[in-house]
Amino acid sequence: MIIHINQNSTKKESQALLQDLSKENLKLFPVGHTQLQKIVVMGPIPDSVLKKLESSNVVDTITPTNGKKYKLTSRMAQDHNTTVSVGDITIGGNDIVVMAGPCSIESKDQITTIAKAIKKAGGHILRGGAYKPRTAPYDFQGLEKAGLKFLQKAARETGLKIITEVLDPRDVETVAEVSDILQVGTRNMQNYALLKELGNANKPVLLKRGMWASYTEFLLAAEYIVVGGNPNVILCERGIRTHVAELRFTLDLNAVPYLKKESHLPVIVDPSHGTGRRDLVLP
Amino acid sequence: MIIHINQNSTKKESQALLQDLSKENLKLFPVGHTQLQKIVVMGPIPDSVLKKLESSNVVDTITPTNGKKYKLTSRMAQDHNTTVSVGDITIGGNDIVVMAGPCSIESKDQITTIAKAIKKAGGHILRGGAYKPRTAPYDFQGLEKAGLKFLQKAARETGLKIITEVLDPRDVETVAEVSDILQVGTRNMQNYALLKELGNANKPVLLKRGMWASYTEFLLAAEYIVVGGNPNVILCERGIRTHVAELRFTLDLNAVPYLKKESHLPVIVDPSHGTGRRDLVLP
Amino acid sequence: MIIHINQNSTKKESQALLQDLSKENLKLFPVGHTQLQKIVVMGPIPDSVLKKLESSNVVDTITPTNGKKYKLTSRMAQDHNTTVSVGDITIGGNDIVVMAGPCSIESKDQITTIAKAIKKAGGHILRGGAYKPRTAPYDFQGLEKAGLKFLQKAARETGLKIITEVLDPRDVETVAEVSDILQVGTRNMQNYALLKELGNANKPVLLKRGMWASYTEFLLAAEYIVVGGNPNVILCERGIRTHVAELRFTLDLNAVPYLKKESHLPVIVDPSHGTGRRDLVLP
Amino acid sequence: MIIHINQNSTKKESQALLQDLSKENLKLFPVGHTQLQKIVVMGPIPDSVLKKLESSNVVDTITPTNGKKYKLTSRMAQDHNTTVSVGDITIGGNDIVVMAGPCSIESKDQITTIAKAIKKAGGHILRGGAYKPRTAPYDFQGLEKAGLKFLQKAARETGLKIITEVLDPRDVETVAEVSDILQVGTRNMQNYALLKELGNANKPVLLKRGMWASYTEFLLAAEYIVVGGNPNVILCERGIRTHVAELRFTLDLNAVPYLKKESHLPVIVDPSHGTGRRDLVLP
Repeated sequence: MIIHINQNSTKKESQALLQDLSKENLKLFPVGHTQLQKIVVMGPIPDSVLKKLESSNVVDTITPTNGKKYKLTSRMAQDHNTTVSVGDITIGGNDIVVMAGPCSIESKDQITTIAKAIKKAGGHILRGGAYKPRTAPYDFQGLEKAGLKFLQKAARETGLKIITEVLDPRDVETVAEVSDILQVGTRNMQNYALLKELGNANKPVLLKRGMWASYTEFLLAAEYIVVGGNPNVILCERGIRTHVAELRFTLDLNAVPYLKKESHLPVIVDPSHGTGRRDLVLP
Repeated sequence: MIIHINQNSTKKESQALLQDLSKENLKLFPVGHTQLQKIVVMGPIPDSVLKKLESSNVVDTITPTNGKKYKLTSRMAQDHNTTVSVGDITIGGNDIVVMAGPCSIESKDQITTIAKAIKKAGGHILRGGAYKPRTAPYDFQGLEKAGLKFLQKAARETGLKIITEVLDPRDVETVAEVSDILQVGTRNMQNYALLKELGNANKPVLLKRGMWASYTEFLLAAEYIVVGGNPNVILCERGIRTHVAELRFTLDLNAVPYLKKESHLPVIVDPSHGTGRRDLVLP
Repeated sequence: MIIHINQNSTKKESQALLQDLSKENLKLFPVGHTQLQKIVVMGPIPDSVLKKLESSNVVDTITPTNGKKYKLTSRMAQDHNTTVSVGDITIGGNDIVVMAGPCSIESKDQITTIAKAIKKAGGHILRGGAYKPRTAPYDFQGLEKAGLKFLQKAARETGLKIITEVLDPRDVETVAEVSDILQVGTRNMQNYALLKELGNANKPVLLKRGMWASYTEFLLAAEYIVVGGNPNVILCERGIRTHVAELRFTLDLNAVPYLKKESHLPVIVDPSHGTGRRDLVLP
Repeated sequence: MIIHINQNSTKKESQALLQDLSKENLKLFPVGHTQLQKIVVMGPIPDSVLKKLESSNVVDTITPTNGKKYKLTSRMAQDHNTTVSVGDITIGGNDIVVMAGPCSIESKDQITTIAKAIKKAGGHILRGGAYKPRTAPYDFQGLEKAGLKFLQKAARETGLKIITEVLDPRDVETVAEVSDILQVGTRNMQNYALLKELGNANKPVLLKRGMWASYTEFLLAAEYIVVGGNPNVILCERGIRTHVAELRFTLDLNAVPYLKKESHLPVIVDPSHGTGRRDLVLP
């Protein structure tokens, strides 16, 4: 069950409720950074406790989770779709938001030139990697902090918002200072140290699906971030590993209706990774 | 290489060409039922032979296949898209053609009622199984010949065209008498005895992709039918087997641009099998 | 449920039982070619009928199948392991039986030379393809009937038994005249027309697992043959399709303990197909 | 190419060589913590440089890597098998080493009791998780530092060596103080922040294969640790994700001969994760 705290109640009131509950033999997961917003309760709540909760002014509503492994990210927790706002851009609403940019930031010139082209073409968010997860240690690992600066400058010049990847829990704060959205790559979808740090971040997170992950595992990875206190998670389908050897990945479009049905979080698609071939993206 | 025979040449002329060629040490695959239409030549053709071919009136053009394992189904064999005509319906052109109907034909009433609803909703082709490939021997195996009659009657009453599955090479003739399109199910994509029989059939074939098949294997299965003399093959993506356990199959939409790029054959999608869940088809 | 018929009862008695049962509203699958051996009953049997059956002399035992989709191939149907005898060779017992030979029979000399080498090395069964399922129509499709003759000759000269593949339901009889075991390849695991024909055959069947198939689907494919009246089915794990691109297939050894736990049928492994690389078989 | 430094040369000499090389336009990866041991050179080395290197006393040998993406972990880099020593236990030699223990450390009593049983049964290394990667944030995440203490105590009492998992690059030092081997779980196989930290660690690393990873990707993940200066990496096959839904994972035994052929690193197998079912491990 999820206890949704009345956001008009004072911090003192909500803390008192939490303290009362913690005397019962219940497994509680309080959610919220500066203020308590929700409490996830695992297992059944005794009827007597439930009655008290239902009549409390501090409690807004109580929603069941009916055996779903994911709670806060489930449709049961929330009727309306979550939308994630980045400046005046809304992700998960009716508008199509385009995020574009190079795989890696290679120089100030490169990223600025590309940013201008994206702006001109009507794009909204500038993407580019400063910290790169590379299959081989001998490949370029990104410009790191210098890359972040180039990215920031290109975004300021064009008025674009920024999304960039974070790989290491120790870098979350640094990247969050520059980037409007924090990207988690497919290989890190179950990097729990990173997910927990992102639950504490004050920036939205774009979580890419692990190329091996089931839909349930994907939602549970998002749940780590949301239960950590960061509700602004965007799910991204980018292709899975299958037996099909002709293309690098198989874009799993089934994921979109399935995730939208199960969860209130926004779902986006990365078509270029899904095929790994530029010439197949447009059709 | 593929030698395309000039269709204005006489049977005698084209047979003479074939006979001449067969004296060279070449591996030849003549294509065409009543009249020779193409000759697939495996391996390199000697320059002297090539020159003679190029100057022959019986030869229309010669197209290379550049190491592709599939020849006749490749884009190299043919510039324009193949379209398959069924009465006044064209598959593979600009119009969207809807094929609909029940998994199995269960009774005359059932198939007729459904056919009328499809006609009313604007559908074009009636689909329904008379011979059913069932995972368990204890499941209903279809009404067989009786089912074909019910299907034919429902189609006649509504003016819809017919597509139905054939499982056994011994049934191809019987099914082709009734059905406008012969369907090959996913499990039979590499049933070579069946594919060879379909190369001899005078009806178009809808070939479903094997749930394990690479794109190359899919095109090679189509190649069996085309080299057998039946050029009217429609490729159908219907979902592959992956690790995703929440849905029965993973619809592989990457297949569509890939196959259209590699082959001139029409490509269609079966979205209901791709998810296995009705409520996910519309979104 | 499975009704095991007392094999001391007369044909008349067992037919009378079957006729009595068919008056009840039950879905019956009688098993046995010349004599009724078992009756598979789908759905619950009324208590009154069950009592009669239990007291009947014609009935040996009645075994439940507890919601398993596969019945006759399940451990519930039979306590002891099935062993398949080919001459004095027993497959599924304690001895290791080696089946070896070339992929294709290419000539009398080739298969005879190999057969002698196998005999010398202690092998038991000669394998070689006369009918070949080939991915491309341009590849060698096997010597067919001539190949069967060469195989037969090589086996007679060496005293080896024979296993060879059958692809087409129309060839089952021809192949069964020559071969001691009929092999079904991975692509035909769910070729139901072929499986039904093999249920009528009087030779054991080696059924290779479809490279896409779950364990349940594999056992259900075997069930088609067994319910058709041929109890001598050998299951063969030969590798599945996975994302691993470095080798052609992934040998799924988990299948062996799983299948042995679920089924009484013998399970064998084809290690050369499982990797597709000769140099990895020995280690 | 890999330049193997003569270990009798002084630090000054080897540093001079490195400095000389860095003047050439080459991409260099020096390997070794306190002392330079190897230099990986990407791309071709000019002949003139190569000659100087070959005649240098500081250089032991130079081995090619012939286009392999992995260098130091390749068989080309080293003739003999790497063995990893933990006290008097040798992993990768002829002896079979058994690592056993519970999934999670739950209490001092639990781990001590199990450790004694393992010792009695002839096991060598005690395994148990203090930091647990759990699919859901609501599941027990491990006893963390307290768990490490319990593990240490149980190992001391029994004389067993320790292996335990590390999830977070910030915990590598803490875990390395207690554990004899550092385990990387399947989900972290491409957690590059963690792999880089493990390259600096002074304890052997057991690297589990990502359930989505190709063999090449697996070796490249190991390469990250080895190029970081830690040569003691043990590869562990533990099952991959496939379409087989009856068991949690598919143990990929093909990996063992393939990896042993490609790499000199020790390869071990985790059979219990490979099936996810205790009753299938023994057979």
